[in-house]
Amino acid sequence: MPESESQSNHGFRVESELSNGRGRTGTLVTPHGEIQTPAFIPVGTKATIKSVLPESIRDLGSQAILANAYHLYLQPGPEIIDHSGGLASFMNWHGPTFTDSGGFQVLSLGVGFKKVLSMDSAHTVESDVIAPGKDRLAHVDDDGVTFKSHLDGTMHRFTAEKSMQVQHQIGADIIFAFDECTTLMNTRDYQLLAMKRTREWAQRCIDEHERLTRERAFKPYQMLFGVIQGAHFEDLRRQAAREISELPFDGFGIGGALDKETLGTIVGWVVEELPREKPRHLLGIGEPLDLFIGAENGADTFDCVAPTRNARNAALLTSEGRFNVSNATSRGNLDPVDPDCSCYTCTHYSQAYLHHSYKAKELIFPTLATIHNLHFTIDLVRRIRESMQTGDFYAFKDEWLGRFTKGTYAK
Amino acid sequence: MPESESQSNHGFRVESELSNGRGRTGTLVTPHGEIQTPAFIPVGTKATIKSVLPESIRDLGSQAILANAYHLYLQPGPEIIDHSGGLASFMNWHGPTFTDSGGFQVLSLGVGFKKVLSMDSAHTVESDVIAPGKDRLAHVDDDGVTFKSHLDGTMHRFTAEKSMQVQHQIGADIIFAFDECTTLMNTRDYQLLAMKRTREWAQRCIDEHERLTRERAFKPYQMLFGVIQGAHFEDLRRQAAREISELPFDGFGIGGALDKETLGTIVGWVVEELPREKPRHLLGIGEPLDLFIGAENGADTFDCVAPTRNARNAALLTSEGRFNVSNATSRGNLDPVDPDCSCYTCTHYSQAYLHHSYKAKELIFPTLATIHNLHFTIDLVRRIRESMQTGDFYAFKDEWLGRFTKGTYAK
Repeated sequence: MPESESQSNHGFRVESELSNGRGRTGTLVTPHGEIQTPAFIPVGTKATIKSVLPESIRDLGSQAILANAYHLYLQPGPEIIDHSGGLASFMNWHGPTFTDSGGFQVLSLGVGFKKVLSMDSAHTVESDVIAPGKDRLAHVDDDGVTFKSHLDGTMHRFTAEKSMQVQHQIGADIIFAFDECTTLMNTRDYQLLAMKRTREWAQRCIDEHERLTRERAFKPYQMLFGVIQGAHFEDLRRQAAREISELPFDGFGIGGALDKETLGTIVGWVVEELPREKPRHLLGIGEPLDLFIGAENGADTFDCVAPTRNARNAALLTSEGRFNVSNATSRGNLDPVDPDCSCYTCTHYSQAYLHHSYKAKELIFPTLATIHNLHFTIDLVRRIRESMQTGDFYAFKDEWLGRFTKGTYAK
Repeated sequence: MPESESQSNHGFRVESELSNGRGRTGTLVTPHGEIQTPAFIPVGTKATIKSVLPESIRDLGSQAILANAYHLYLQPGPEIIDHSGGLASFMNWHGPTFTDSGGFQVLSLGVGFKKVLSMDSAHTVESDVIAPGKDRLAHVDDDGVTFKSHLDGTMHRFTAEKSMQVQHQIGADIIFAFDECTTLMNTRDYQLLAMKRTREWAQRCIDEHERLTRERAFKPYQMLFGVIQGAHFEDLRRQAAREISELPFDGFGIGGALDKETLGTIVGWVVEELPREKPRHLLGIGEPLDLFIGAENGADTFDCVAPTRNARNAALLTSEGRFNVSNATSRGNLDPVDPDCSCYTCTHYSQAYLHHSYKAKELIFPTLATIHNLHFTIDLVRRIRESMQTGDFYAFKDEWLGRFTKGTYAK
């Protein structure tokens, strides 16, 4: 795509700002459509939001979806998605798409992040990350990551270049630089090492992305987001944010080790170092409280498997707290899950029907539960956005969280 | 409901007849809507067509659904469905509903029809129907059937009266009399015994149905269909059809032992004995050839789990024969499953996507495959109906079956 044209179909504009100088609303423009921010982006790991048709995903309010490069690389293979006209076309999703870089998955999948990961260094707290007697599923070195497929045990290797090639084949509108994702259990020295690698890989991602963008100029432009690591160390987070934002990324992902207690603080540090005019995606965050904190501190988009995964386990979100529809109290109960909810599920089905279909292991249950939890989460972020636009964010936050944390179903 | 009103919201009218004097088109009127016949009725055993939302079921062309009284009696229990306003309201299906009587299921579920069924008689070919060393799951006597729940092993008993009570609580528009369902392996003497019981139970069903209809006059009228057994014996089938049609049933179900070779012959015998003005449902029939034969010989509606069950196993129907999208030929194939098919799945997804989602065990696969197979089957019967209306039935049958049995994917 010629530069003049590519300029017109992607970008970000800030439209209002919160009084704290960090939170804001805006519009993220992609070749497949616009996203009003803040926005929650549902996760469709393998090119499907599990159990829900794309038209329903659109109807429940989703503006975009995020798929996983690691999973799609292994199955069906990125060349099939490329051949199909890219992710959106392949999966019948008529809107913007994201893919993560695969960095988190190549390091975490298989037997579990904390158990079988080798970080190639005496700096690692080895006892925390390697389970005795288990094969190592992933091995990181300065050039990339060698990992074993969780599907068939075959060995593969991702580098910065490979991740860009795979993500260009998948063809999402927003893609992420390949990074080394650490945990809070890694030492400070190891975090430094990982940050240095992530910085070097960031430059390599940009170089390969620019090469591929020229080579595949017939394809819609893909925005590349750099990823900021640094765990819970303020100086490392700020340094990473400065270093990554010096590179010509289209936006940023705030990733890696984030715990609930320090989420707002960490996002705040990073956001203070980032340029105002570029979008920021908070990776793997989707619980209601975290969405308020993330948006308040300047994150524009969010993704998380929690709403969809919890739905399949009958754990539903309501304005009065979390509610498990598998409980006996829902048996024969004609009320909807949440009388305040306007989703398809709450307006068409009783708790009795959801309870029955869950107990009967019917495939309609994950569909109905996922529609509810996604609508609930997406609509919450929509209301956060509207409250920012009208200047009522803090009042809305207090009222909403007060009800959610002290309501009928609050623990 | 007062009789004058109940007369207006249910009934059947024949609208055109095939030259053989048996096949016909018509309209079956129920309190929840009309069904243009011949029509295929998808099976939603436990108050859901597995993996597909009711709105999609409507969109793919379904005019009605059929649920199972046995399953719903065990789970969630008929009182919950009654309390929910009946089956249609409970499951968010805005159209006509059927329930079978539970007769087939109480006799067949658990360890399998041929293996653990006791028919309480030396007339039974015991060695064919009872597996050595296995518990008997069902025991038939002249008054009813005692059976063990396939869910939790608890013991239950269905009689004619109980089946009516359960089906009135479930509240489908069309319900079936409780019958003893035999197999082709039963002796002629046993078929006679079962027919006699079915005839006696038919009268008891009518009596209980009339009592319940009076008692529950505030509910929409339910049409009761009598069931005709008799296996492959012409005299027994004709006798059963005459005896059952002497009773004031609203319509008839042709049930029990039917094999592919004799299907048309058996349906023909029965139809010749039945009154023209009442509808006839062919129980458990849904393969393309059988639908042609059934409609040609005067069946008005059909139900069968084959299209939905086969879909979940990746076995898809096409105009060129049966096709399994799990085969390697579909990997990366951008063509739809059937280029002649206008269903949602074929117009929005490639074989590549279906193959991927099947291999990845994604929940969207059964949804897309079920939509296709149901649309295919329902649309085939719609075209049979139209060909009867235009006088082109035999030409359509020859052309369609010729392509289906000799096409690219025909075995």
